[in-house]
Amino acid sequence: MVTFLAGGTGTPKLLNGAEAVFDSSATTVIANTGDDIELGGHLVCPDVDTVLFHGGGVLDTDTWWGIDGDTTTTHDELHRLADAAGLDAGPRYLNDDAQTTGRDIADWRRFSGVAEFMEIGDRDRAVHLTRTSLLDEGRSLTEVTRTLAEAFGLGIDLLPMSDDPVATLIHTDEGTMHFQTYWVHRRGDPEVRDVEFRGADAATPTPAVRDALAEPVVVGPSNPVTSIGPMTAMDGFAAALSSTPVVAVSPFVGETVFSGPAPALMRGVGDEPSTAGVAAAYPFVDAFVLDTDDPTDLDRPVVRTDTRMDSAADSERVARAVDAALSEVA
Amino acid sequence: MVTFLAGGTGTPKLLNGAEAVFDSSATTVIANTGDDIELGGHLVCPDVDTVLFHGGGVLDTDTWWGIDGDTTTTHDELHRLADAAGLDAGPRYLNDDAQTTGRDIADWRRFSGVAEFMEIGDRDRAVHLTRTSLLDEGRSLTEVTRTLAEAFGLGIDLLPMSDDPVATLIHTDEGTMHFQTYWVHRRGDPEVRDVEFRGADAATPTPAVRDALAEPVVVGPSNPVTSIGPMTAMDGFAAALSSTPVVAVSPFVGETVFSGPAPALMRGVGDEPSTAGVAAAYPFVDAFVLDTDDPTDLDRPVVRTDTRMDSAADSERVARAVDAALSEVA
Repeated sequence: MVTFLAGGTGTPKLLNGAEAVFDSSATTVIANTGDDIELGGHLVCPDVDTVLFHGGGVLDTDTWWGIDGDTTTTHDELHRLADAAGLDAGPRYLNDDAQTTGRDIADWRRFSGVAEFMEIGDRDRAVHLTRTSLLDEGRSLTEVTRTLAEAFGLGIDLLPMSDDPVATLIHTDEGTMHFQTYWVHRRGDPEVRDVEFRGADAATPTPAVRDALAEPVVVGPSNPVTSIGPMTAMDGFAAALSSTPVVAVSPFVGETVFSGPAPALMRGVGDEPSTAGVAAAYPFVDAFVLDTDDPTDLDRPVVRTDTRMDSAADSERVARAVDAALSEVA
Repeated sequence: MVTFLAGGTGTPKLLNGAEAVFDSSATTVIANTGDDIELGGHLVCPDVDTVLFHGGGVLDTDTWWGIDGDTTTTHDELHRLADAAGLDAGPRYLNDDAQTTGRDIADWRRFSGVAEFMEIGDRDRAVHLTRTSLLDEGRSLTEVTRTLAEAFGLGIDLLPMSDDPVATLIHTDEGTMHFQTYWVHRRGDPEVRDVEFRGADAATPTPAVRDALAEPVVVGPSNPVTSIGPMTAMDGFAAALSSTPVVAVSPFVGETVFSGPAPALMRGVGDEPSTAGVAAAYPFVDAFVLDTDDPTDLDRPVVRTDTRMDSAADSERVARAVDAALSEVA
C-alpha cells in the first residue's frame, strides 16, 4: 500500500507513470482541497478533478486541467450575457455574509458565476454539478468523490484531504484574495505577504485519510505552500506523516522550479524557494528524490534521477526513483 | 399601457403577435413563478424564461421552452455520470430540511441535479447560472429578471410575479409532489386531489407588479390553476385585478383545451374544465375573448375570433380581439 499527497499538476504528472511501479488497487491519493471554490453555486475541486480526469483517461494533458476536447458553450454564454447586461467580468467574490451561508464546505471560497472567471467546460461542469447535488443530498465530500471515481472508473482510491472547508487565502498589499483570484485571475502578480488556510483550525482529516497516512507516503513534486500546506495545517496531519515513512519529490532543481507559483508563495511565507527550502518545510520527510542536476546537499537520504516529467515514460522513471527511496526508509 | 399575465405557453404564444397591436415599450408581462425550481443549485424560471427567450428571438418555438438549437452537453454528461455511478434518475427532490436551507427564493422547490430530470440546454444553463449568481450577489429576482431582459434585448418590461417563493405542489393519492415532478416527470398522470401554493400566504406582489396591475390587464390563454393561481393566491393580487379593466382569453373551446394540464388541474381543485369553469374561476375578469366555435354563453362581454395560435399571424388576430375586448370595458 502507498499513499500519494497531490496538488494540482506535479503529483498528477507523477501518477501518470506510477501505475507501472505501484499497483493501482493498492494506491491511495489524498488530494488538496484548499484550492477548491464554489463558483456559481457549484463546488469546483481542481486538484481532485485533475486526478479524477487522469484516472478516467479524459484529462487534457496539454493544460493538466479539464476534460480533453470539452466544449465551453455555457461558459461562453455566461460571458455573452454579462457583456450584454454590462456586468463586470473578473472574479466576483461574494460578500462576507454570503461566504458563510449555505453549504459549510464552501465557506470563504464562494464566487458568483456571473462572467465565470475560471473556464469550466460543459462536461466538466456536469462533474461539479453532480458533486454539489450529492453534497446537497447529504453525502460527504469523501463519499461524493468516491462516487465520481466510480463513474470515471478509477483504479486508485481518491480521497479529499478533509470533509471540512479549508480556504487558501493570499495576503497581499492589494488585500486578501482567494488563491484562485491570485493565481487564475491575477496570474500570480501581487506580491505574497502571507498565506492563510482559513478553516484549517477546525478542519480534520477524515478517517479514510488517517488510515491512508498509516501507509508509506509519497509527497509529489507539488508546491509545498498551497498544495501540501492546507493538509499539514490540519491538526494531526503532520504528526501522522512523522510516524510513517515519507518520500518527497522536489519540485525544484536547486533554485529552479519546473512550473507554478511555488517560488513566490514560498518567499511569501518566509521559506527559501529551492530544494533546500522544501526540505526545511518538510521535517516529516525521510528521503528525497532530487534531479540529477540538483546541487543541493541534504541531511536525509537522496535518490537522484532526471525529474523532468513530459511523458508517461518520464513519470515512470521518477516513480521508480520514489520506490527506491521508499525502500531505503520503509 | 397594458399588462399581460403569463404562464408557460398560452400567453407567450399570444405575445408572439401582440407587438403588432400593443406597443412593446408600453407593455408589461408579469410571469408566473410558481413553476420555478432550484435544480442542481440553480433557479430555473420556466415561465419567465419562455418570455425572455421569445423576446430575445431565441425561443425554440417547436417546444415553446428552451433556446432554439441549444446543445445539451452538460445534461447528457449528468446522465452518463449517474448511470456509471449507479445513481437513480428521475426527480431527486431534496429532503425537508434542505428545502428551506440557503436561498429563500428556492424554498420548497429544490431538486438535486443528479441525472437532471428536466432537460437544460447549455446556453439555457448560462441564464439560470447568471440569475442565481446575481441573486447570491444580493439582487432581487425582479432586478435579476430585468438584467437578463437587458441582455436579451427585450422590448417589453418583464416582471416575476413576486420576489418571494411560491411553490406549486400537487396533492395526489401517491403523495404531494412539486408541479414539475407531476408535469415533466409524471406527464400529468397521477390524479390531482388538490393544488397548494406553498409560500403564497407570506408572498407579496412586488411594487413593480402592483404598478403594472393599475393598468388594463390581459390574462392570456394560460391554465387558470397553476399559471394564474399562484398570482391570485397572493394577498392583494385579485383585489388589484378587480379594480382595473381585465380581459381574459379562454384556453378552452367550450370543454376542449388547446394543450397542457388545465383540465386535470381544474378538476382537481373543483373547477369545471371548460370556458365556463375559467369564467367562474376569474370573477375579476370584465370581458372574454372566446373561440368562434365556443358555444359558451357568459354573463360578461365576449369578443369572438379563431383562438388557435400556430403562427404570429394567428397571435396577431387574437391580440386584435383582445384589444377590441379591452375597448369595451376600459
